[in-house]
Amino acid sequence: MKVIVFFVAIIILGAEWQCNGSEHEHEHGHSYQIFPLRMKTGPGGHYIPEVSCKSWRLGVEAHNVIDWRTIPQDCEGYIGNYMLGHQYRSDSKTVCREAYFYAKTINITAKTTWVFDVDETTLSNLPYFADHGFGVELYNATAFNEWVDLGEAPALPESLKLYNKLLSLGIKIVFITGRPLYQQAVTATNLKLAGYYKWEKLITKDTDKYNGKTAVTYKSTERQKLEENGYNIIGNIGDQWSDILGTNTGLRTFKLPDPMYYIS
Amino acid sequence: MKVIVFFVAIIILGAEWQCNGSEHEHEHGHSYQIFPLRMKTGPGGHYIPEVSCKSWRLGVEAHNVIDWRTIPQDCEGYIGNYMLGHQYRSDSKTVCREAYFYAKTINITAKTTWVFDVDETTLSNLPYFADHGFGVELYNATAFNEWVDLGEAPALPESLKLYNKLLSLGIKIVFITGRPLYQQAVTATNLKLAGYYKWEKLITKDTDKYNGKTAVTYKSTERQKLEENGYNIIGNIGDQWSDILGTNTGLRTFKLPDPMYYIS
Repeated sequence: MKVIVFFVAIIILGAEWQCNGSEHEHEHGHSYQIFPLRMKTGPGGHYIPEVSCKSWRLGVEAHNVIDWRTIPQDCEGYIGNYMLGHQYRSDSKTVCREAYFYAKTINITAKTTWVFDVDETTLSNLPYFADHGFGVELYNATAFNEWVDLGEAPALPESLKLYNKLLSLGIKIVFITGRPLYQQAVTATNLKLAGYYKWEKLITKDTDKYNGKTAVTYKSTERQKLEENGYNIIGNIGDQWSDILGTNTGLRTFKLPDPMYYIS
Repeated sequence: MKVIVFFVAIIILGAEWQCNGSEHEHEHGHSYQIFPLRMKTGPGGHYIPEVSCKSWRLGVEAHNVIDWRTIPQDCEGYIGNYMLGHQYRSDSKTVCREAYFYAKTINITAKTTWVFDVDETTLSNLPYFADHGFGVELYNATAFNEWVDLGEAPALPESLKLYNKLLSLGIKIVFITGRPLYQQAVTATNLKLAGYYKWEKLITKDTDKYNGKTAVTYKSTERQKLEENGYNIIGNIGDQWSDILGTNTGLRTFKLPDPMYYIS
């Protein structure tokens, strides 16, 4: 009987997936996939955004959907509701809680270190993205930097809680952000305003040195320098896979949700 | 105005996360986290399974929640609905579609190879798990092997579609499964019954050789042997992170959903 139920379940979803996405050459030379604007997942090809936008978001979080530049156009409403609603907060909480439970199992020394990314990891740019289609618009560096330069980004509350708990365990905090050197001061001020009062280092990106390099390369190199200086990275948390892939990733990594943009 | 909406959104979810999970020593010696049976995520600590089971599942898929032995007890209904409903199929489709779009960008030679895991990747044991609480029961090797030995596991339809498309591109298929050597014959028969007619190798686990070794070690070693024999692994798909972590992982990896069990 259960077997029959199962077969029915797989038959009713028998719609075909065609190659209805188009491929384009990426600006950095490798090809990437534009997610089909019309996602057909239901019987008869009926469009069900609640189902397929969920699948797209899961694909992003599990590192299956990569190298995208904007969210699928049809998912703006879904992603907006996700970001402003309960689920984003709950998903973040689960990650931060696991991170803390893990940290508690570690023997802490003076050099025990945890790496945090900044944007969408410690500070939230949701007020900006709420005004810019939650990732449906192409990234606009000028407008985004204007927002960053205000220094008003709020803390991500679950991340702030994790940060304080890690500090209370005696763990040193290092921020590594893709923000450029010139935003060092405003970032430091913003972190304090948001409730992050203490850190070992705040590493911003030397855009001359890392010109044309990926975030993976930049962050790996900076983590390697930390480890060469005796820091023992036991944890590493970011909203992008490029925060936690590469070398010197740390003993365990944590991926916070971010369905709004992708950095390779 | 948008900023205010945002702050309201983060304030209404201001419930605390306490360390209300307990830690136990894992049978293999490292400690792991039992997910709190009562998950409090809403205001006033009100239990919202739809929110927190979703977060738990996302945590599993993004490799944040690891080393668990059973699903949270309160999530049995949620996981059962997920597995039997539209979302599991849709999530699988998104992964397989991305995999195919990627494969199409690759120059295929006679040695171009794609690695598939078997259980919950090519074959579905959902008929079994539907009778065993969708992962809420502790793994029972005897009962599970009885089911496997029937050789009646159906194909995962999106995976079968991917498999056929990869074959038609001229890519060689290698199955690497944690199933033991003695299930080689029944697995081969089951694969054919389910519609997988052709493969380069079907690698089952020599449980003497890999006694006490993790799935990551076993699968990495077997992939390394493949590459030493000239196979060029361009893709690797599995439902467990242990299928796609380690060495010789392949040029790109794909994680299919599986919220029912965890293999380290």
